[in-house]
Amino acid sequence: MTATETGQRHRLVVIGGGFAGVDLCLGLKNIAVDVTLVDRRNFHLFQPLLYQVATGGLSPGDITAPLRTVVKHCKNIRTVLGDVTDIDVAGRRVILAGQDPLPYDTVVVAAGVGQSYFGNDAWAEFAPGLKSIEDATQIRARVLHAFEQAELAKDPLERDAWLRFVVVGGGPTGVEMAGALGELAAHTMAGEFRAIDSKDARILLVEGAPRILSMYVPRMSAHAVTALNDVGVAVLLNTKVTGIDVDGVDIESAQGKERLRAKTVLWAAGIKASPLAKVLADHTGATQDRSGRVIVEPDLTVPGHPEILVLGDLAHYAHTSDQQPLPGVAPVAMQMGKHAASVIARRVMQPHAVGFGPTFHYVDKGTMAVIGRNQAVARIGFGLDVSFGGFFAWCAWLFIHVAFLVGFENRALVLMQWANHYLTRHRGARLITDVSGATRP
Amino acid sequence: MTATETGQRHRLVVIGGGFAGVDLCLGLKNIAVDVTLVDRRNFHLFQPLLYQVATGGLSPGDITAPLRTVVKHCKNIRTVLGDVTDIDVAGRRVILAGQDPLPYDTVVVAAGVGQSYFGNDAWAEFAPGLKSIEDATQIRARVLHAFEQAELAKDPLERDAWLRFVVVGGGPTGVEMAGALGELAAHTMAGEFRAIDSKDARILLVEGAPRILSMYVPRMSAHAVTALNDVGVAVLLNTKVTGIDVDGVDIESAQGKERLRAKTVLWAAGIKASPLAKVLADHTGATQDRSGRVIVEPDLTVPGHPEILVLGDLAHYAHTSDQQPLPGVAPVAMQMGKHAASVIARRVMQPHAVGFGPTFHYVDKGTMAVIGRNQAVARIGFGLDVSFGGFFAWCAWLFIHVAFLVGFENRALVLMQWANHYLTRHRGARLITDVSGATRP
Repeated sequence: MTATETGQRHRLVVIGGGFAGVDLCLGLKNIAVDVTLVDRRNFHLFQPLLYQVATGGLSPGDITAPLRTVVKHCKNIRTVLGDVTDIDVAGRRVILAGQDPLPYDTVVVAAGVGQSYFGNDAWAEFAPGLKSIEDATQIRARVLHAFEQAELAKDPLERDAWLRFVVVGGGPTGVEMAGALGELAAHTMAGEFRAIDSKDARILLVEGAPRILSMYVPRMSAHAVTALNDVGVAVLLNTKVTGIDVDGVDIESAQGKERLRAKTVLWAAGIKASPLAKVLADHTGATQDRSGRVIVEPDLTVPGHPEILVLGDLAHYAHTSDQQPLPGVAPVAMQMGKHAASVIARRVMQPHAVGFGPTFHYVDKGTMAVIGRNQAVARIGFGLDVSFGGFFAWCAWLFIHVAFLVGFENRALVLMQWANHYLTRHRGARLITDVSGATRP
Repeated sequence: MTATETGQRHRLVVIGGGFAGVDLCLGLKNIAVDVTLVDRRNFHLFQPLLYQVATGGLSPGDITAPLRTVVKHCKNIRTVLGDVTDIDVAGRRVILAGQDPLPYDTVVVAAGVGQSYFGNDAWAEFAPGLKSIEDATQIRARVLHAFEQAELAKDPLERDAWLRFVVVGGGPTGVEMAGALGELAAHTMAGEFRAIDSKDARILLVEGAPRILSMYVPRMSAHAVTALNDVGVAVLLNTKVTGIDVDGVDIESAQGKERLRAKTVLWAAGIKASPLAKVLADHTGATQDRSGRVIVEPDLTVPGHPEILVLGDLAHYAHTSDQQPLPGVAPVAMQMGKHAASVIARRVMQPHAVGFGPTFHYVDKGTMAVIGRNQAVARIGFGLDVSFGGFFAWCAWLFIHVAFLVGFENRALVLMQWANHYLTRHRGARLITDVSGATRP
């Protein structure tokens, strides 16, 4: 029995408070629908700036906003902190660990993606990825700890291993991470050590494909390599990682096999869908793509199940002019969230309408990656690829990122923090925390 | 053989990068002494604002500064991240876990204090104290988690237990913590829940003595109780805690015994000296007081060992007009650090001077505790006790705290953050992190 038949208000359950989930919720503020927003975490995370937490430039609180605060003024939305373990598609209930199920008329699955090690899960221990706040503070601790160990090392080989940083994966996360590490070593930490010079750190970006940032035109990829070199990052292209352990990385390229001794390895190479994608596929017969994402209809619903929508990184949406799936980036997720709000609003206001909802169209305003503090590459909408340098690059990047930060408070503060970083190259949030044995007596 | 005899520069090892250690180091910037600053952590912590991290008002990065950055411009100081396990007093070496010993001509022990549960160490699990950044983020997670659980609870008794917060100890930390919790529940979180009203939270401050804030005159203690009541905190005086477990607290007073059901209990009641105090006592015959602090000479040295100085919270210094030991607060530690710098400078510049160094005199400029955002009590130097209200209280408190934050960057940013909190009552850093199972797929 649906809500309409019982005379109740339409019940919507939204799984995931990321960009898609939050924009969906905000779009339903004045619609007669009872929304339950479920997330494992109590905060929305501005993931594009996570690498800044990992390199000590920003604090976790700067790039998060409590979900309850975000939807505070939407009186039709309640927030539940919970872990979704299953979706009872036949019974229309979302199953939570240790809590009552949440019945729904429509469910939106926007649970995002995690790290994939392409079947080598043992690498995770030695090469953490960058998906959660905990990942970022762990990477921050590892990077800072490596410099501390290098300062103490007496064996030069040992010292070099502590001063070598390998970033695996030349996508936007890997490039921005490597650039920020270069900035940290070459500028921020300069003069702070006595036995070593932080500028001696060697940062390697390893990419299996012939170029980095493959979503840009080749000229931009080459520009990014130059910009990375300028901040002291070496880029290895056409190079595959065949092994990772506590002491370094095994790589393989046309030049043969090689062993890179490095104490710090960071993973930015692959993603895999939330386990909820498989749950959906099992219960609805929906198809998953190679990364596990759910292939959706033009209105973002699951085939044959108009009551289930999949949004954001978890959705494989290929109803585009070039048939390519949309990338897993924040603007896609946000636009999907807004679109889903209109699909659901139509459903509530015209309960007897039949067929698909309106078709989703992604408006591509472009994409941008920043390297160090002075260089950026960008692809502006309409196929225009450009590179920026200097203060202008920084301003453009800043404007785009900060303008989309959820929560005004954070926006103004992050702006201040950034202005300060740009002027002083300081990175204040350089804490080694949560390391075993690190607490005071 | 001392440094002077060998013609080497004087070697100073400073254990602890707190207020005393940092001010000592900065005071030795232009003195011909080789300083090694050892700390377990890579950052200096502004402990007086730790309760703001615990209640989501500030981020860990806001109240810390990397030690390397703090002493960056002191080229005679090197920083070592390490864990001191012993002091070889006869051999004049500081022993570190897993690292080479550090030989010294003079050693300064400023390792601070930890939490004491008065012999009931089992309570620690249920009632975390507030000494480290990890303590603060753990308390933050517990407090925010309690509100989330209350929102989900169906049993009214269960809900009440999640909404009851007990703070044990009516010193400055307990009072400021309870006041901030009251502010959080009554204002910051108002309107964010659907099943509960955060204003229904009951915060209890339990104190064994007849009054709170015993370092103030009785009129101020009474004023603080009124101010706490105004932000919804109930104060239980003459009340001893006899038991703490997962479900609540057992208390005992003249009215008899009582059981307080509460899921969240915070400990702000007792301190105990770093284990290094006992190490010193064992090796030098120095006397420890009841809290384990080392009783020092008028020049802050250990009796019979002019080459060992003890500073900050770890020092019991009672060479005052009233014979009372100085309190373990930041201004005492900072002044001790500055004084120790002059003692050591004299030693280096007049190597053949005999007898005690100059006597330490503490200049008491007063102390202050803030309750909620609009009330504060203060004891200004020269015995003048005053209470403030409203914006003036906030400004005075802000000025005093922020002016002493180490690192200019943090100072300006914390100021911004505070201005924003005052105007909006927002607390942006409300993250539940580092809880097992909380990481993303």
